[in-house]
Amino acid sequence: MEKSEKWLVGVDLGGTNIKFAFLSENGDILYRWSIPTDVSDAGNNIIPDMASSISQKLQENKQTTSNVKGIGIGAPAFMNMETGFIYEAINLGWKNIDIRSMLEQRLKLPVVIDNDANVAALGEMWKGAGIGSKDLLCITIGTGIGGGIIINGEIIHGTNGMAGEIGHITVNPENGILCNCGKHGCLETISSATGMVRQAIAEIDNHQESLLFTSYQQNGHITAKTIVQAAIENDTYALKIIDRSSYYLGLALANIANTINPSRIVIGGGVSKAGSLLLDSIRKYFNEFALPRVQMGADLAIATLGNDAGVIGAAWLVKNKL
Amino acid sequence: MEKSEKWLVGVDLGGTNIKFAFLSENGDILYRWSIPTDVSDAGNNIIPDMASSISQKLQENKQTTSNVKGIGIGAPAFMNMETGFIYEAINLGWKNIDIRSMLEQRLKLPVVIDNDANVAALGEMWKGAGIGSKDLLCITIGTGIGGGIIINGEIIHGTNGMAGEIGHITVNPENGILCNCGKHGCLETISSATGMVRQAIAEIDNHQESLLFTSYQQNGHITAKTIVQAAIENDTYALKIIDRSSYYLGLALANIANTINPSRIVIGGGVSKAGSLLLDSIRKYFNEFALPRVQMGADLAIATLGNDAGVIGAAWLVKNKL
Repeated sequence: MEKSEKWLVGVDLGGTNIKFAFLSENGDILYRWSIPTDVSDAGNNIIPDMASSISQKLQENKQTTSNVKGIGIGAPAFMNMETGFIYEAINLGWKNIDIRSMLEQRLKLPVVIDNDANVAALGEMWKGAGIGSKDLLCITIGTGIGGGIIINGEIIHGTNGMAGEIGHITVNPENGILCNCGKHGCLETISSATGMVRQAIAEIDNHQESLLFTSYQQNGHITAKTIVQAAIENDTYALKIIDRSSYYLGLALANIANTINPSRIVIGGGVSKAGSLLLDSIRKYFNEFALPRVQMGADLAIATLGNDAGVIGAAWLVKNKL
Repeated sequence: MEKSEKWLVGVDLGGTNIKFAFLSENGDILYRWSIPTDVSDAGNNIIPDMASSISQKLQENKQTTSNVKGIGIGAPAFMNMETGFIYEAINLGWKNIDIRSMLEQRLKLPVVIDNDANVAALGEMWKGAGIGSKDLLCITIGTGIGGGIIINGEIIHGTNGMAGEIGHITVNPENGILCNCGKHGCLETISSATGMVRQAIAEIDNHQESLLFTSYQQNGHITAKTIVQAAIENDTYALKIIDRSSYYLGLALANIANTINPSRIVIGGGVSKAGSLLLDSIRKYFNEFALPRVQMGADLAIATLGNDAGVIGAAWLVKNKL
């Protein structure tokens, strides 16, 4: 790294852990660490914890703030990205937190924030499966389903920060299960890790030959990881669940693609560890529902950055938005 | 108009008529006319016809090309907006037509083109129901269903010009009717004028009390206009068709809104003449399927420019893109 280059601080603020990294201006991770998220006392300790952890690690690395360009943060929150104000972050216990000025006061460094799903998309665009794509759709399939949409190289936020809420696309309008959001039949109710587990348990007694039945008997529960693992081992019932989840993912992604015509669709999150098994299945249904020219334009790929997407995307914000 | 202001030429190139207008730089229509579209001979006469018609009308209005800023065109075509090259325009009989250089050669004026649905959206943003909205979704419900999406004040085209093809969102994936595009269950198969007529005829014999049955007996066919008129007159069967069409429109628009979070949704095209009857019905289902914060952000409105949207949007392109 050249002497004149400044470090970028990327922060991925989650409900369980806060991941941090120092990155070079070309997006290489130089140093990384994480701390647990202290959600006690309505999350009042989170910002002091973040500030002192960054200060301490800069010291340990013999860096002063004059060598740092700024701090980028991805957070699971409704926010105003322009002002750096968070209206609500349910998993953190936060309401109306002016995170930007609180951190700027403590660290004397500029701060930029965005939604965690958007930041992960920026990470994949910069250094992951989205490299080279200016029109990118990222979907994160974990406990819930999130999305980040990049058009002409810029994240779109929409009129009140809700753009990319693709987990709440209604794919089963008539007989849909109740979603956390209050609606019925959202994509998230079927194709998220939680949705897959719900599917598995619903008909478990009819599939006593399945590895999932055995696992359920032994542990009293099933995880999405177990379903994915069983599917990789060719378990018929697990494959059926992956197929049904992929059907609705393919449908929703094709409908979004007919709308925004992306050049790449990147699938991340815990469930994406199913890899080509999941990807091939989603692609099959995507091709059934996307217009031929839309299909032609769009590559589907599994995310490559894993847990680093957040800190890398947050550093992208520091580099490009400060 | 100030002496230094130049005229803008807006052209709405359709399969039946070509609409033209001269506009002031603030988007007022100064003069308008139209000519039939000559689709004979693979559409080879269209560009010469356009050029000579514009020349003639400039002369009649005692204007020279030095008083004209340029020509904007909305066309029903797959194209490269950057180069002004049309790959295909099925309704015009065109394949691989370099419309920009052909017109520029003839008229010695710069030319800018875009897709007709996009141009209509720009028109509504500039002078119609979309005024003041930078994140705008326009849907045109006519023989087919088209869309134009504006994000941060700019039309989005997608990676190969297909953005906004919202008529081909799959809303009935399981029992869908075959669409012109080759897929099944597209929004267009149900909620377009054609789709509404198809619905009406399918069960006409079970609704002999309906005005639509009488009309069908008398004329041997039904039009979407008849359905809309009968619905306004409170015909139960016609209202049922409007309701079913609105259900799928509300579902598709809500799913798009959960994705791009627009501040306004403008509904245009022939079917939008049903006015508040249609709008209220779409809004009911939209609110059922859109996230609460997405609903809060989005006004639904009927387009106000009617047939002028195209020429006004085309003039916007001249003003802002040349």
